[in-house]
Amino acid sequence: MAAKTNAGRFFEDYAIGQVLEHAVPRTVSGGERALYHALYPARHALYSSDQFAQDCGLSASPIDDLAAFHVVFGKTVPDVSLNAVANLGYAEGRWLLPVYPGDTLRSTSEVIGLKQNSNGKTGVVYVRTRGLNQRDEVVMEYCRWVMVRKKNLDAPAPETVLPDLKKVLSVEDLVIPEGLDFTGYDFTLAGEPHRWGDYEIGETIDHVDGVTIEEAEHMLATRLWQNTAKVHFDLTFRPDGRLIYGGHVISMARALSFNGLANAQMIVGLNGGAHANPCFAGDTVKAWTEVLDKAETSAPGVGAIRLRLVATKGGAPFVLKGEDGRYDKNVLLDLDYWALMPM
Amino acid sequence: MAAKTNAGRFFEDYAIGQVLEHAVPRTVSGGERALYHALYPARHALYSSDQFAQDCGLSASPIDDLAAFHVVFGKTVPDVSLNAVANLGYAEGRWLLPVYPGDTLRSTSEVIGLKQNSNGKTGVVYVRTRGLNQRDEVVMEYCRWVMVRKKNLDAPAPETVLPDLKKVLSVEDLVIPEGLDFTGYDFTLAGEPHRWGDYEIGETIDHVDGVTIEEAEHMLATRLWQNTAKVHFDLTFRPDGRLIYGGHVISMARALSFNGLANAQMIVGLNGGAHANPCFAGDTVKAWTEVLDKAETSAPGVGAIRLRLVATKGGAPFVLKGEDGRYDKNVLLDLDYWALMPM
Amino acid sequence: MAAKTNAGRFFEDYAIGQVLEHAVPRTVSGGERALYHALYPARHALYSSDQFAQDCGLSASPIDDLAAFHVVFGKTVPDVSLNAVANLGYAEGRWLLPVYPGDTLRSTSEVIGLKQNSNGKTGVVYVRTRGLNQRDEVVMEYCRWVMVRKKNLDAPAPETVLPDLKKVLSVEDLVIPEGLDFTGYDFTLAGEPHRWGDYEIGETIDHVDGVTIEEAEHMLATRLWQNTAKVHFDLTFRPDGRLIYGGHVISMARALSFNGLANAQMIVGLNGGAHANPCFAGDTVKAWTEVLDKAETSAPGVGAIRLRLVATKGGAPFVLKGEDGRYDKNVLLDLDYWALMPM
Repeated sequence: MAAKTNAGRFFEDYAIGQVLEHAVPRTVSGGERALYHALYPARHALYSSDQFAQDCGLSASPIDDLAAFHVVFGKTVPDVSLNAVANLGYAEGRWLLPVYPGDTLRSTSEVIGLKQNSNGKTGVVYVRTRGLNQRDEVVMEYCRWVMVRKKNLDAPAPETVLPDLKKVLSVEDLVIPEGLDFTGYDFTLAGEPHRWGDYEIGETIDHVDGVTIEEAEHMLATRLWQNTAKVHFDLTFRPDGRLIYGGHVISMARALSFNGLANAQMIVGLNGGAHANPCFAGDTVKAWTEVLDKAETSAPGVGAIRLRLVATKGGAPFVLKGEDGRYDKNVLLDLDYWALMPM
Repeated sequence: MAAKTNAGRFFEDYAIGQVLEHAVPRTVSGGERALYHALYPARHALYSSDQFAQDCGLSASPIDDLAAFHVVFGKTVPDVSLNAVANLGYAEGRWLLPVYPGDTLRSTSEVIGLKQNSNGKTGVVYVRTRGLNQRDEVVMEYCRWVMVRKKNLDAPAPETVLPDLKKVLSVEDLVIPEGLDFTGYDFTLAGEPHRWGDYEIGETIDHVDGVTIEEAEHMLATRLWQNTAKVHFDLTFRPDGRLIYGGHVISMARALSFNGLANAQMIVGLNGGAHANPCFAGDTVKAWTEVLDKAETSAPGVGAIRLRLVATKGGAPFVLKGEDGRYDKNVLLDLDYWALMPM
Repeated sequence: MAAKTNAGRFFEDYAIGQVLEHAVPRTVSGGERALYHALYPARHALYSSDQFAQDCGLSASPIDDLAAFHVVFGKTVPDVSLNAVANLGYAEGRWLLPVYPGDTLRSTSEVIGLKQNSNGKTGVVYVRTRGLNQRDEVVMEYCRWVMVRKKNLDAPAPETVLPDLKKVLSVEDLVIPEGLDFTGYDFTLAGEPHRWGDYEIGETIDHVDGVTIEEAEHMLATRLWQNTAKVHFDLTFRPDGRLIYGGHVISMARALSFNGLANAQMIVGLNGGAHANPCFAGDTVKAWTEVLDKAETSAPGVGAIRLRLVATKGGAPFVLKGEDGRYDKNVLLDLDYWALMPM
């Protein structure tokens, strides 16, 4: 009987080169946009106003880049992380095309790395996931690696294959949306006067604002992305509290970063990310940013900025790791991404 | 002064043949769809992707069948169940036309049965409710009976009329949406390989997943359907806790049933249903299904399957009633419906 | 570093005649409408059904007037009330054009009054705020005055300028939407039979229903309007509880007033308003109304009615102020507005 429900894949079920076609395509609309703005204090103008987006050379205001990421990511959960012990990392994330209301997204993942752990009970699976639209164009892609349980401990260990992933995307790797032009950028409507040239490598910004998280909110968000991992919803499964989807913290921190980075409009690259500590309802999420790098691009008036975005649940800003090299207990997220700003 | 507010109808206010035109028509959009996906872990592909729905012969992805039901039902509350003591049953529910974004729904109910209870204080009212779109086409209909208080205990008892309602709709009663064609059905995108032929009558499926319910969520849902029954919202009216709208449990259980019934795409018939026990915030809803019947249809590749969907708030799956014939204390919902699956 | 985040304006930063162009324009869609109906028990038919609105002479169902107000208001917070000690009052609020899905709104405010308080530490700032659409048409405007802290106590006091604001808008000040025609108004679909002629000046209506408010709900609402004032979101900032955005109470009370005022369809004027006491999660909001005035208009079948809408969190209806002239401790809101009704 239980055979009809999805038990998820175990470590021995993956093989190098395997392509997983994930289920449940999704058409997005203004409804997803409105909910994104209700769930997060998102205010980047390009994702709020059709007119502002058109003045920047796009056809309309896209769905938030992170909303597109969540939709693509959510579909992978039943095939990749249902039996995951831990979400270990991200790399080579690239946004290749804006997603507009009316677009239909689906996801596929290719297994690009495998390594059984020495305990023989778990292994690490590396996948490259792609989100495609209704024209089969890739709208985004990223690599992720997770630790997955073995079900059959006698299954032989696969040959170890470790993918060669870039620690950091170079500016040449980034794809600037066609037509994007910041030469007529309206800083007043965007909310802050600071342009690309005003940020210095090494500079840190405390985004000041905080949001205390409620159970209803993170569950609404996680369901919206059709991510149905049990740990986020079922208190009887995890009596110490429903674990908040890491993507909820990413979106919350990014939205909070508006205050100081209102002009870091579009996310185009994800270099890496760690969910340093679990987040639960009742935590108050705050965020700070460190400017890691800057680069010019070929698009008119468009600069690229590499940012470390850190979400915390307490403590002082700018504290990341202890002397032992481990994340401070208040750090929830350490995310390394590239964004596009007006020069 | 209070004369201007709606006190609702009492038992003596109903008469056989009476037609109630319910208020507040409603235009639905992608917003309702996005909210439905945020409120419930809904993943049936036909209701998630325009492209998938078009590949099945529809013009676009419809609003979830249960969302259409909730919109139609919500409008009846001020006229039918404001003074109801209990919602006793459903029968002969049929979905006749898909509801698409842009459609405007309204509801009417005809009184088809009346029976005063022997205590002289309450009576049972049977109504047949129809939901209509902006072209005055009936999109769905169902019968419901509720126990309603008398206000004037001296009002004479009406002649008892008990409608002759089918215990179960036959497959000939079901209406298959025009153009529906499952011959090219994509099982991979739908999420599970199990087709109509893979299910056996008597088979039971534990849907495994659970959701712990929050106050904010059920109130958002119930308001969205413009159901304003006081018991769901006002803690001062019902200090033991806000009673959760039974339809919230129906939608939650149906969405959870994706895990094992991902291909039971469209709901076309409601044979009956009982809200066995009240549901409150904090309860963790799980679900199981029993296959009650199967039938072929005239549409290409489309089979019908009759399912008993049971929602629980604890206990083991597959426990329905005790030896005394009463529902187990953990059973929230016992719903009997017909769905359409690829053969 | 902190220089890049918005510290808000202090009293000495305002000058008479100054025009503040507020940031983050916003395109609204069916998503905002669906969320409005999920957040509030809103049932006015003109804002629920395209068909009903078209039968009243409009092109489609507009976004709720208060949703338009919240969108316009939310944009002003970073420039006007980030350092406000208190929101003191509203006047001369007028809705000039309906807002439809697809419209893009932005806001500007002009400083029209300044008065430093005798303590030398704070002052009162009066602004006239306008909301504009993508065609630069003014869709609504209102005056608001707030008490704002000085940062530099040595800054000289500005010349006192007190704007001459109308205590009450006259019916000639109100703008009736072009084409509005209530001569074919469908009272059955609207939900109540009471027309303009059925209401008497001095009449009071207890709206009966109540809603117990949850944290998640008011935060979703407040974020949706891109109002990011810290007091509404950050429990560590205000440990006695997150203060609920006053506009959430306005919308809740207005929606509750459907029960008794279902035909007070469109809000066209805001004469004044006071947030009498703070509202916190757990409070149960109820509402009552007093009819203050009535007037005919030039539009076919359209009457204007001036209403005092009072929201409470307990106590009996119709209690407003004590013998000392101060608001009763249970009064949350005292709002004076003009609405349009079928005659």
